Amino acid sequence: MNYYGQAVSRLIEEFARLPGVGAKSASRMAFYVLNGTNERAQSLAEAILAAKQSSKHCKYCCNLSDEDICHICKSTKRDNTTIMVVETPQDMAAYEKTKEYNGLYHILHGAISPMDGIGPGELRIKELLHRLDDSTVTEIILATNPNIEGEATAMYLSKLLKPLGVKATRIAHGVPVGGGLEHIDSVTLLRALQGRREI
Amino acid sequence: MNYYGQAVSRLIEEFARLPGVGAKSASRMAFYVLNGTNERAQSLAEAILAAKQSSKHCKYCCNLSDEDICHICKSTKRDNTTIMVVETPQDMAAYEKTKEYNGLYHILHGAISPMDGIGPGELRIKELLHRLDDSTVTEIILATNPNIEGEATAMYLSKLLKPLGVKATRIAHGVPVGGGLEHIDSVTLLRALQGRREI
Repeated sequence: MNYYGQAVSRLIEEFARLPGVGAKSASRMAFYVLNGTNERAQSLAEAILAAKQSSKHCKYCCNLSDEDICHICKSTKRDNTTIMVVETPQDMAAYEKTKEYNGLYHILHGAISPMDGIGPGELRIKELLHRLDDSTVTEIILATNPNIEGEATAMYLSKLLKPLGVKATRIAHGVPVGGGLEHIDSVTLLRALQGRREI
Repeated sequence: MNYYGQAVSRLIEEFARLPGVGAKSASRMAFYVLNGTNERAQSLAEAILAAKQSSKHCKYCCNLSDEDICHICKSTKRDNTTIMVVETPQDMAAYEKTKEYNGLYHILHGAISPMDGIGPGELRIKELLHRLDDSTVTEIILATNPNIEGEATAMYLSKLLKPLGVKATRIAHGVPVGGGLEHIDSVTLLRALQGRREI
């Protein structure tokens, strides 16, 4: 029902399309905009358009960036012999937050998922292979998600990389740090056992 | 940290200002916009500006509306002898959803709250009194929130309305329908006892 007039109802509908936003949150967000200043509303609207228009993919790693080459690929302090392959920019950010990984990244923008009609052709694999041309890179860390699609993608890439003489590694499966074993599923427990190391 | 370039980071910050949106939700929302079509981003940005610019307050009830007079005040099917006074447009929508109330509304846009510096002058009380001029209205239902601010506002309005010869009523306090008594606070239980009726 249209309780607040067309314009407000449309804004509520637009907010409700965003992921994780239900009808109640959407109307709370809309009233926040309505009760705020004109400048705040303008700023939000502009940010949406600016992000959509000006953000592009780094020509090397395919990460989002304002420039042709992102700040990680541009940096001279990073170890350019190692590339970590991840599915999304958010996954890259998660590893950046560890502040320990110092190599480069490659963002596939998805994972192989025949159910959703996503094959290797839809991913940024061509761009990854292109980066191996000058043989600077010696190791590719496959850090796709630990689910069916991510495993399939890691498997596919490892088969692709082997003939090229580049070492392909996969991030370890095991029990997450913190929490109790009782809450962890049996597949993960089994992987942790198989991956055990001498201490 | 700026992982995705300025434009995307700014969009994430803008989304994170919205109520109930944390850093993770904001970045999920930003990536939803980035992965969507240009038209969808445009449509969201336009809805924000349009709602802010074109929505105004109904000159009678002060509800949000695209026009000078809202569809409820304009309707000939509503009982114009009764006005329900609520704090916000959302409260009005909540009562509209019951589909039982057929009178008019008046939206105060807030409640008296000395702590937040909101006195009677900040509320749409003048507009309410103005609606009583032609003596069509015989009852004012005070449906402000059942909290300190709402009670104070209802009390203030009832004192204001009494000399004008208009009946002022307050919505009933009591136990909400559904759920068990054990979870209900003792003030509410007491109010429900005091307000008991013969069946």
